[in-house]
Amino acid sequence: MVAPHNKFAEYKNLVNVHLENFLDRHASLVSATLPRSLYEPVRYAMEGNGKRIRPALVLMSCAAFGGALQKALPAAAAIELVHNFTLVHDDIMDHDDTRRGRPTVHRKWDTDTALLAGDALVAMAYQSLLQTESPHLNRICQIFTDGILKICEGQALDREFEHDDSVTPTRYEDMILKKTAWLLIMCAQMGAILGEANSAQIEHMGRFAEHVGLAFQIQDDLLDITIAQEILGKDFGSDVRRHKRTFLYVQALQHGEKSAQAALREIFMKPEIAQSDILSAQRIFSETGALAAAENAVREHLSQAHACLTELGPGVKTTELRDLIHLILHRNA
Amino acid sequence: MVAPHNKFAEYKNLVNVHLENFLDRHASLVSATLPRSLYEPVRYAMEGNGKRIRPALVLMSCAAFGGALQKALPAAAAIELVHNFTLVHDDIMDHDDTRRGRPTVHRKWDTDTALLAGDALVAMAYQSLLQTESPHLNRICQIFTDGILKICEGQALDREFEHDDSVTPTRYEDMILKKTAWLLIMCAQMGAILGEANSAQIEHMGRFAEHVGLAFQIQDDLLDITIAQEILGKDFGSDVRRHKRTFLYVQALQHGEKSAQAALREIFMKPEIAQSDILSAQRIFSETGALAAAENAVREHLSQAHACLTELGPGVKTTELRDLIHLILHRNA
Repeated sequence: MVAPHNKFAEYKNLVNVHLENFLDRHASLVSATLPRSLYEPVRYAMEGNGKRIRPALVLMSCAAFGGALQKALPAAAAIELVHNFTLVHDDIMDHDDTRRGRPTVHRKWDTDTALLAGDALVAMAYQSLLQTESPHLNRICQIFTDGILKICEGQALDREFEHDDSVTPTRYEDMILKKTAWLLIMCAQMGAILGEANSAQIEHMGRFAEHVGLAFQIQDDLLDITIAQEILGKDFGSDVRRHKRTFLYVQALQHGEKSAQAALREIFMKPEIAQSDILSAQRIFSETGALAAAENAVREHLSQAHACLTELGPGVKTTELRDLIHLILHRNA
Repeated sequence: MVAPHNKFAEYKNLVNVHLENFLDRHASLVSATLPRSLYEPVRYAMEGNGKRIRPALVLMSCAAFGGALQKALPAAAAIELVHNFTLVHDDIMDHDDTRRGRPTVHRKWDTDTALLAGDALVAMAYQSLLQTESPHLNRICQIFTDGILKICEGQALDREFEHDDSVTPTRYEDMILKKTAWLLIMCAQMGAILGEANSAQIEHMGRFAEHVGLAFQIQDDLLDITIAQEILGKDFGSDVRRHKRTFLYVQALQHGEKSAQAALREIFMKPEIAQSDILSAQRIFSETGALAAAENAVREHLSQAHACLTELGPGVKTTELRDLIHLILHRNA
């Protein structure tokens, strides 16, 4: 028997080996005719020390129904390629300078190079996906494609919300559903289909991933303002510093006293946000019950995620999926 | 019997109606949950007065083999969506302010909006493509996907060449093959497959489109420096003004006298290029035989394109495809 962390490391390794072979065949810099200005940033984006959580979820979802891992590897690689496409393009839009401790593509090269490398990553994702041998390939392509569009919608909504104080918790949840959870939904459903799950099971797997994704994002919002920098690996309060409307902000504006709302709005209107502003926002989030609401929401989504797995029926091996929830949600541990 | 121009107008109309329905179903701005900041620029990009040459080529290629037009419409729409994706992203990289007489997406909105709208257009292109009902859908998806990556490579090479005076005519042709001709190759091959052409015919159709695409691009380079502004609808000598290494530039450096090469290099090193510089470049292109070489190359590729059509065999209706060559290549008439 393999311990959960080792099992996870095994999946990560499978994905990395497959991705390396894929890149060597499809984007070999040894070839004189291929433009280095395209494939160097593509490889750089795919290197980093990515956790490969999403492709691992594809493999686990397939394995849960007894499917062979080998069958799901091209789809898993496609997910990781598309994930990195969104990171490269989002980093441009968010003006982020670093990612996984390295300069972002548009900082190491320039915006145009990152733009084009992201475009190539999408095409390469489809190249990998189309290597999938399955009678369900058409359906898998549809889930993949609809999902990419949903993720674009999520990113657009996220950007719209930056200048919109009227965002309700419901609309916020719709945004993070698309921006964060949908890629996980794609992973779980594609894996389940490749494992020959039935339609009800594919549905349950989608809802499982939805709850995991929402819990993940809300916890991300929470950690940003509650955990010390050393532990999280990013700046404390970076969301507030960047005027980001998070779950906490939306909750505080919805449920806080008028005075707390006004104080929070005032902080977010400042062009430059100081450390003291972040601490004030933290206090407001605490006093308005936004922190507690976030903790509740995480707990609730996790419980729902587990319930979805239970509904899959007795023949399905859900242990790894339950371990994955644990692994994702205890990043701070 | 329908005259060629009317036939072409009929195809354009079919494509436009199909695209409108597609956008209404998939990107309806009436829906409150869809982000306007994403779908307004998407629709704007697709409106304009595009000539719809590429989707028409898909339809014509299908019809040449007796295939039903209706069957090829989702693929034709996919091509137009992907074409506009490349335009929106290329306009960002090329800092172009106008397209088809209107502000480009990144000028009307901003770079980030255009970046994301382009991404959405790719996903929507695949959505349309996946609506194709054909036993060959997997192969069509592969041609489509490999083609998008080729186009990215072409754009990357084009950008690399901006700062590279050692580009040979062969490498230049490889670049325009990917950047300009490949989308036409995709159109011709996808249409032929949907028309149930055999493998040799699909091959011939690809080479036909390759020659049309190369002729088209070389003629584009030629017209830029030989035709008055009013006729072409863009600035006379805009390639020189933007330091663009065209077929003419590459030829002049390859075959011109040392003094002509030096004079041309000097012009292209100027940060600001005056009208007199453009006229000097034009004279150098003429004296080095670059203009004549371009005219020859266009003629040669056209003749090859016609030859490819002839090789299709007697049962194939090539009249419309020959009319299309005529239509594309007499834009200045």
